[in-house]
Amino acid sequence: MFTGLSAFPLTPMNETAIDEAAFVRIIERLADAKVHSIGALGSTGSYMYLTREERKRVAQLAVENANGVPVMVGIGALRTRDVLHYAEDAQQSGVSAVLLAPVSYQPLTEREVFSLYETVARSLTVPLCIYDNPRVTHFNFSDRLIGEIAQLPQVGGIKIPPVSSDPAEARARVDKLRSLVPSHVKIGISGDFAAAAGLNAGCDTWYSVLGGLFPKTCLPIIHAAQTGDTAEIVRLSDRLEPVWDLFRQHGGLRVIAAAAELLGCAPSPNLPQPIQPLDEAARQQLDDILQQLELNA
Amino acid sequence: MFTGLSAFPLTPMNETAIDEAAFVRIIERLADAKVHSIGALGSTGSYMYLTREERKRVAQLAVENANGVPVMVGIGALRTRDVLHYAEDAQQSGVSAVLLAPVSYQPLTEREVFSLYETVARSLTVPLCIYDNPRVTHFNFSDRLIGEIAQLPQVGGIKIPPVSSDPAEARARVDKLRSLVPSHVKIGISGDFAAAAGLNAGCDTWYSVLGGLFPKTCLPIIHAAQTGDTAEIVRLSDRLEPVWDLFRQHGGLRVIAAAAELLGCAPSPNLPQPIQPLDEAARQQLDDILQQLELNA
Repeated sequence: MFTGLSAFPLTPMNETAIDEAAFVRIIERLADAKVHSIGALGSTGSYMYLTREERKRVAQLAVENANGVPVMVGIGALRTRDVLHYAEDAQQSGVSAVLLAPVSYQPLTEREVFSLYETVARSLTVPLCIYDNPRVTHFNFSDRLIGEIAQLPQVGGIKIPPVSSDPAEARARVDKLRSLVPSHVKIGISGDFAAAAGLNAGCDTWYSVLGGLFPKTCLPIIHAAQTGDTAEIVRLSDRLEPVWDLFRQHGGLRVIAAAAELLGCAPSPNLPQPIQPLDEAARQQLDDILQQLELNA
Repeated sequence: MFTGLSAFPLTPMNETAIDEAAFVRIIERLADAKVHSIGALGSTGSYMYLTREERKRVAQLAVENANGVPVMVGIGALRTRDVLHYAEDAQQSGVSAVLLAPVSYQPLTEREVFSLYETVARSLTVPLCIYDNPRVTHFNFSDRLIGEIAQLPQVGGIKIPPVSSDPAEARARVDKLRSLVPSHVKIGISGDFAAAAGLNAGCDTWYSVLGGLFPKTCLPIIHAAQTGDTAEIVRLSDRLEPVWDLFRQHGGLRVIAAAAELLGCAPSPNLPQPIQPLDEAARQQLDDILQQLELNA
């Protein structure tokens, strides 16, 4: 479950409802490309902006249209009560795993975050992936806490934030994590611009925003990782630098939402307000980049 | 509406429901003390952890039991769609104002935050208070943006984060804000430990966590502000330093939740999980402080 390319699709929507047809089209792209797993309702899937019913429907649509590719869904919420509901719904929808971030409004203590994972893990029959993303959760895991949570029986993976672009530092970080978690717990990189660094440092998984819309562009990077071709990983990632640059400037979500429009996969706008689409200049820049990189299909 | 002591009550709850009787008891304390306004469903009222129905019920209970004291409620949410629902419900409940923070999961741009306020202000008939609290929203307002939002017709107040403890710096900050906003927009301080600094720098309002449970302790500070007795403001606030110190260590919410228990105003626990009550040592420390300061009634 927690190895290879885990593709994180957009959930296209308007202010009234999910665009189910557009979502299914995106899932079908991922199933056709045979990604290793689909991470529906991730940050790119705007899970935090959806109601319980909407999340349930998205999980069902993902599972039904994944053509056997394992589906993981995000179950994070500010309140433990809601996380437990989302976990139950996700399991009933037939997902293969759940992804849990310690989302916060009031800053959380380590004791509180541990208790969240402990309570939720106890309620699960499918594996859980720890979602470490301080950019959106505003919670910083200590190494000690990651080690403790990773011992919980249900934990199968951890999704980590970008590692250093310095290979020695990146390797040291991943090695350090390996020493903290049980050997069956897989380590995956997120933050697409850091994927090459993470994979070359020994990560098992790439949790990918770009892969959620352009799986055929991202799979060769994973294949290079599987054969240990570190130079090829770097070459393929460097080629995508103009995309990574836009991700850094505008956030991956706004860029991938615009790319989905440009590809005809989703209507415009498709993000939950107050989040707004890219402005016209950035959208034009993206369009040019997609054409130059031959990503426009 | 936006002057004097604005008392922010706790919303006692368990994992199933709001403790309505306990909430009404707390509102009655505030009404009896004749605070200048009640800020129900603030951060201290755990608004972000409640369902639409729960928020609606809390707003109704606050208005019904405030004995004529104006009630403001928090309407913040990650999604504009939900903010509009909460605004509508709040107005139907008879509130006198609403409080809106740019709560975020995906980091928001200035353009997005302006559009949120513009959309919501257009839907309102009651005044709106801008809630600037980067500790929980993770959005940092620029001065330019505050100035632009404050021009919106419905805006009547702004709730600012702690000012500097240096009187000249605090005064410069409040003067600067005054120069940015129309003259009818009131400026209020939050972060109780900075209240004295804020009031002495010319703030019109104290948005108070402590005042939400101990109004009679906080009103004399406002009265001193109203007569311009800066030394008395400092003396009264300095006396409460042991409380402010606990607020800094554990967050005002966890401390006030424990104080409500110690006073017999709320059951234990009363916060939404994953937020946990103070541990036994901190709770004992708080109990000692309440007795020493004669706040134990």
